[in-house]
Amino acid sequence: MALIAQKYGGTSVGNPDRIKSVAARVAGHRAKGDQIVVVVSAMSGVTDSLIKIAKEIMPLPSEREMDMLLATGEQTTIALTAMALHAIDVPAVSLTGAQAGIVTDGVHTKAKIRNITPKEVHKLLDAGNVVIVAGFQGQTPEGVITTLGRGGSDLTAIALAAALKADLCQIYTDVDGVYTADPRLVPSARKLPEISYDEMLELAGLGAKVMQSRSVEFAKKFGVIFEVRSSLNDNPGTLVKEETAHMESVVIRGVSLDKNQAKITLAHVPDKPGVAARIFKAIGDSAINVDMIVQTASHGTSGATDISFTLDKPDVLKARHVLDKIKGEVGFKEIIADEQIGKLSIVGVGMRSHTGVAAKMFEALAQAGVNIHMISTSEIKISVVIDLAQGEPATKAVHAAFLD
Amino acid sequence: MALIAQKYGGTSVGNPDRIKSVAARVAGHRAKGDQIVVVVSAMSGVTDSLIKIAKEIMPLPSEREMDMLLATGEQTTIALTAMALHAIDVPAVSLTGAQAGIVTDGVHTKAKIRNITPKEVHKLLDAGNVVIVAGFQGQTPEGVITTLGRGGSDLTAIALAAALKADLCQIYTDVDGVYTADPRLVPSARKLPEISYDEMLELAGLGAKVMQSRSVEFAKKFGVIFEVRSSLNDNPGTLVKEETAHMESVVIRGVSLDKNQAKITLAHVPDKPGVAARIFKAIGDSAINVDMIVQTASHGTSGATDISFTLDKPDVLKARHVLDKIKGEVGFKEIIADEQIGKLSIVGVGMRSHTGVAAKMFEALAQAGVNIHMISTSEIKISVVIDLAQGEPATKAVHAAFLD
Repeated sequence: MALIAQKYGGTSVGNPDRIKSVAARVAGHRAKGDQIVVVVSAMSGVTDSLIKIAKEIMPLPSEREMDMLLATGEQTTIALTAMALHAIDVPAVSLTGAQAGIVTDGVHTKAKIRNITPKEVHKLLDAGNVVIVAGFQGQTPEGVITTLGRGGSDLTAIALAAALKADLCQIYTDVDGVYTADPRLVPSARKLPEISYDEMLELAGLGAKVMQSRSVEFAKKFGVIFEVRSSLNDNPGTLVKEETAHMESVVIRGVSLDKNQAKITLAHVPDKPGVAARIFKAIGDSAINVDMIVQTASHGTSGATDISFTLDKPDVLKARHVLDKIKGEVGFKEIIADEQIGKLSIVGVGMRSHTGVAAKMFEALAQAGVNIHMISTSEIKISVVIDLAQGEPATKAVHAAFLD
Repeated sequence: MALIAQKYGGTSVGNPDRIKSVAARVAGHRAKGDQIVVVVSAMSGVTDSLIKIAKEIMPLPSEREMDMLLATGEQTTIALTAMALHAIDVPAVSLTGAQAGIVTDGVHTKAKIRNITPKEVHKLLDAGNVVIVAGFQGQTPEGVITTLGRGGSDLTAIALAAALKADLCQIYTDVDGVYTADPRLVPSARKLPEISYDEMLELAGLGAKVMQSRSVEFAKKFGVIFEVRSSLNDNPGTLVKEETAHMESVVIRGVSLDKNQAKITLAHVPDKPGVAARIFKAIGDSAINVDMIVQTASHGTSGATDISFTLDKPDVLKARHVLDKIKGEVGFKEIIADEQIGKLSIVGVGMRSHTGVAAKMFEALAQAGVNIHMISTSEIKISVVIDLAQGEPATKAVHAAFLD
């Protein structure tokens, strides 16, 4: 008898029929003799309409009250999911995050899980129930309701799996698993049977929208093996787990294209100590997330350099505003923003033991006529910034070089 | 500085604009220096649509899960109400029933309040906040969410007022207060400035839909003086409180017509011991609520009698079914149901000290040409069953005799 934690996202529980499908799937697992804990999100659309009605009342509502409001979304789903299981004669009990023993800090709308005391969950499981837990929410030690922010339900499932010492954690979503590349871009893309936490983390940070980094980090920290799979079919998904020796035999695990980045170049920045710090402190203070940073060598004898960095496209205006304010003080000449870029990355723990990976990637791009604007590397990742228009052929070329 | 508990029903918080109106009213009270605890219901329509979606999943959902589901309705309103107060710069904090310390028994969908520990409410009030509490809900000592059933939010407000030793409890609703009769039936009906708990209880049981009996009973038991008033204007409402000496100087407080009752007559019931007990045990076991019961004298030497009783109209079919099953065993001859009746009642603690009240009522009805089918009296109430078609003129005639 195994203990399985399953998480179903908002689309998987988006209407009564889908909730019934989830119940049928859970019942199937239970029929094999396993104990099941189910974590559910709010039905798709519910959170957005709650936010809309809140903003009708106040444009910038209190975060404590937003948590109070949004927590009702998952509470609705747990009750309906329990009912759907009852309807097919499966004993099931729903628990809010607080009732499931999920204790968080008090940072409303993006609380961190401090600890989980799953006493009640264990008790209900031992009594033969499927336990349905509201994702995305918890409470402070003082009993104030909090929410965990984006990707919070994944986090609930993984943290519960860790606290319960579950044998398996399944993240059901609307994709089949993790692919070597986006199948819509690269027809030859393959689903990966397994991937390491680190590779998954790099992919999560690169626009592969399967999961938020924080959930993967949590899983890595507590050694929770989880499977990303589809709630629409019975195909096996992708197992995310600690790196194994044979994972290194594959040079790269996947190719990812992020179309949501922009590039800002500051031209003729004085080449003296403290300048980069001043620039990126101002950017950071405005909560703008910077990804790649490249500084070119000085322009001959001018003592000036160019600094380029990438950021999320929606932040470009805000960044311009911040940079305009420090332009005189820092002494650079021009701010050039380019939103027509794509960030193409390859990820794989195999890079550590294989040489010439970067060269092979650049060669594939050159042969496809793709010009590279920026390069950034980490131990298990190489990212390049290219023209957005070349994103698709570039992705195909790199996939062909390593993965076809 | 007074401590005031206010309750706003579903219509009063039915949309964002109405929630803003509630906030404005609360702010007005607070500006006078009072501490305010606000109890709110689910926005009108929300509970019904939650029930509808639950029934799509399972026709007869688990009552525990219904409570989990329905409790989200009030939780949504408390968050929105707090936001509406913030929007006009009034500090406010929302609490679920559980967080407000409302502990109930475990009878789901109609839990009884066991005790209230309003520590958190006091703390938040003392810190200068308006405290918004979710009506209709609580939790068991084990932390399971419960709801209080129909009229539950009124009960929350009155019980909180008792626990907090509030100076005043205001029940805001869509009527102006308690009237001597339904103003739609009797144009000369007047709003009562005050009424005793017992009179209010009789009226609640007589189809005056202002409040459920249980809330009035609770208020009586704990001596909570409350005011029923409108959330749509600033008119003073009706104070409900312990009987005072001068209340007895008025013969009757009000006239009420209940159109939702039906009459069932069992013809030729054997006149022997245990028969009535057998009949009403069967009815009671089917959870059918019987109001008036009248048994006529025996039919001459036949040794048989007629038994009539009134019940809620929707229960007529069920009652017929039950009675058909025991017809042979008990030995009555016929079941005659009449849904075209009205129950007209007069209520007043003054009856105790005034004689001839019943005679005066019957005379007024006779003069208006109204035939009386059944009569039932209590210490402070006289009810008669009449033809439904004569309900309106009969109400007017009785009102004229006592109250115009």
